[in-house]
Amino acid sequence: MKIGLIGSTGHVSIATGGLRELQGIEVAGMAPGSAGESMEKAAQLLDKAGFSAPRYDDGLRLIQEAKPDLVVIACHFGDHARYAEEALRRGMHVFVEKPVATTLADLEKVRLAYDTAGTRLAAMFGSRTTPAFRTAYQAVRQGKIGRIRLVQAQKSYRLGIRKAPYLSRDTYGGTIPWVGSHAIDWVLWFTGERFRSVYATHSREENRGHGDLEMSAQCQFVMTGGIAASVSVDYLRPESAPTHGDDRIRIAGTEGVLEIRDQEVLLINGEASGIQKLKLLESRNLFAEFVHSIEGRGECTVSAEESFLCTEACLKARQSADESRVVLF
Amino acid sequence: MKIGLIGSTGHVSIATGGLRELQGIEVAGMAPGSAGESMEKAAQLLDKAGFSAPRYDDGLRLIQEAKPDLVVIACHFGDHARYAEEALRRGMHVFVEKPVATTLADLEKVRLAYDTAGTRLAAMFGSRTTPAFRTAYQAVRQGKIGRIRLVQAQKSYRLGIRKAPYLSRDTYGGTIPWVGSHAIDWVLWFTGERFRSVYATHSREENRGHGDLEMSAQCQFVMTGGIAASVSVDYLRPESAPTHGDDRIRIAGTEGVLEIRDQEVLLINGEASGIQKLKLLESRNLFAEFVHSIEGRGECTVSAEESFLCTEACLKARQSADESRVVLF
Repeated sequence: MKIGLIGSTGHVSIATGGLRELQGIEVAGMAPGSAGESMEKAAQLLDKAGFSAPRYDDGLRLIQEAKPDLVVIACHFGDHARYAEEALRRGMHVFVEKPVATTLADLEKVRLAYDTAGTRLAAMFGSRTTPAFRTAYQAVRQGKIGRIRLVQAQKSYRLGIRKAPYLSRDTYGGTIPWVGSHAIDWVLWFTGERFRSVYATHSREENRGHGDLEMSAQCQFVMTGGIAASVSVDYLRPESAPTHGDDRIRIAGTEGVLEIRDQEVLLINGEASGIQKLKLLESRNLFAEFVHSIEGRGECTVSAEESFLCTEACLKARQSADESRVVLF
Repeated sequence: MKIGLIGSTGHVSIATGGLRELQGIEVAGMAPGSAGESMEKAAQLLDKAGFSAPRYDDGLRLIQEAKPDLVVIACHFGDHARYAEEALRRGMHVFVEKPVATTLADLEKVRLAYDTAGTRLAAMFGSRTTPAFRTAYQAVRQGKIGRIRLVQAQKSYRLGIRKAPYLSRDTYGGTIPWVGSHAIDWVLWFTGERFRSVYATHSREENRGHGDLEMSAQCQFVMTGGIAASVSVDYLRPESAPTHGDDRIRIAGTEGVLEIRDQEVLLINGEASGIQKLKLLESRNLFAEFVHSIEGRGECTVSAEESFLCTEACLKARQSADESRVVLF
């Protein structure tokens, strides 16, 4: 299978990290996907994985000339959609950084291209394949907390110093789609329900000169089945914190409460007294899963439909926050 | 000072627990405040505190005949307001279970009575005086996390088996005003800002035969200063949990993040590397504080204005959830 890499801004390491688990892969080319984008990070990661690739100076030329079977897209976030659409129209598989698009119009174009492509797509919701999230998901699916009624999800990052692509809504898309998308994906994934409405708020206050970048955001979703799901997102994690990110989710159901915190899974239910700390499953690589699913060897944890639904939810939450009103699905 | 106790449903123990810290108190009477209310719990608590009191069969008669200087009101929640209004109109001080009222119309009556009474009122936001909350509040006021940008608050309780007053909106008021009021109060107290808007959702699903009682609720507040504050409330804490309640708050500011969890206060800021666990202040008794404030000996942690603002926020959040729309303040 021939793959092409477009961009080096997002989590291209998920793809390069998966290469060692795969057989018969040729990296047919790599190219920047956005104006001024350096491909050095991707080149180093490829080299580390034992691969090299011809360089193209433009993502569209890579698609047209290298003719990969699968395109990995991780450029500036506002450019994800045009490469995804183009690749799908040419019958290529697409492994794309989330969000799939930064506007609802772009998302619709990708969806339409996907509907006729007959190929596969997955967005890089990489946290699904980490030990804590895999373990929590298994426990929820085994019925350990009964029927889900309420979810609280949190993403908190250190801000550090973010470069130009993060400072403009056009290239960045917003903090809800970029950071919040993970937590919004967890809501979709764990509940297995659909988004019904969202009310959200976000703020650029105190963003330390980071242009359009929102420092904090909160979203209140109502899911089918009347499940309430709140998502809190911030770049306020201090530099002195023990880790870069503080991912959390708390899921309360009719038979128990499950939490992920500090990469641990904590469960309270009728099976035991007090709080159980679950034994963690091993991590998996999402890109390797995706390629295997194309080869007919297993399922990918993230489906195209979920990638689209989560992107839509992010963009409607951003719209809600921009317009201070409830947005329906 | 002569005090009267009306009702035995709410946290009357805050008042009886404060008696031993006070001098010159006479309990001039006790009476049920709501139809069918037993006063046995209050009588036992009084006895334990070394007090006894004449019994009246009705709260209004107690007010009229025993003529206390201060009335403690802790009957069915829908009846708080009428006793508070009556006591204020007669120039009595009022120590009332939260929420102060269960309808905006009743709240307005109490506010009007308060405005002309010249006496004091405080609602029983007892968690403010616990070690963790006192410690966290001191740290925030000392500037340990800079300017607050985002708050997440949580109340989670075991449901157990709740009696008739909890099963009807008329007597109970709703889960947002009853359980959520604490967390909504924390938002008001810690931020020192005012409520600007709220979007909320609540659900009676899976309430195990508890009538109108909402099992879960979430509120998304926007405060003055653009602070986002989410409040999550549920009765889904399993019976096997180590404690009855799981109170939490996480406050993210420009200079740090502070959390209360498991009655501990955790702080991350530039003063140290990693997570600091703060040494806890001692608890105080809110009723003793309230009486002392009347006597001109110190301030009460909870003001009348905050009691009204928080009650208003609870009732507007409930309205938002009932009507699925944003409610402004």
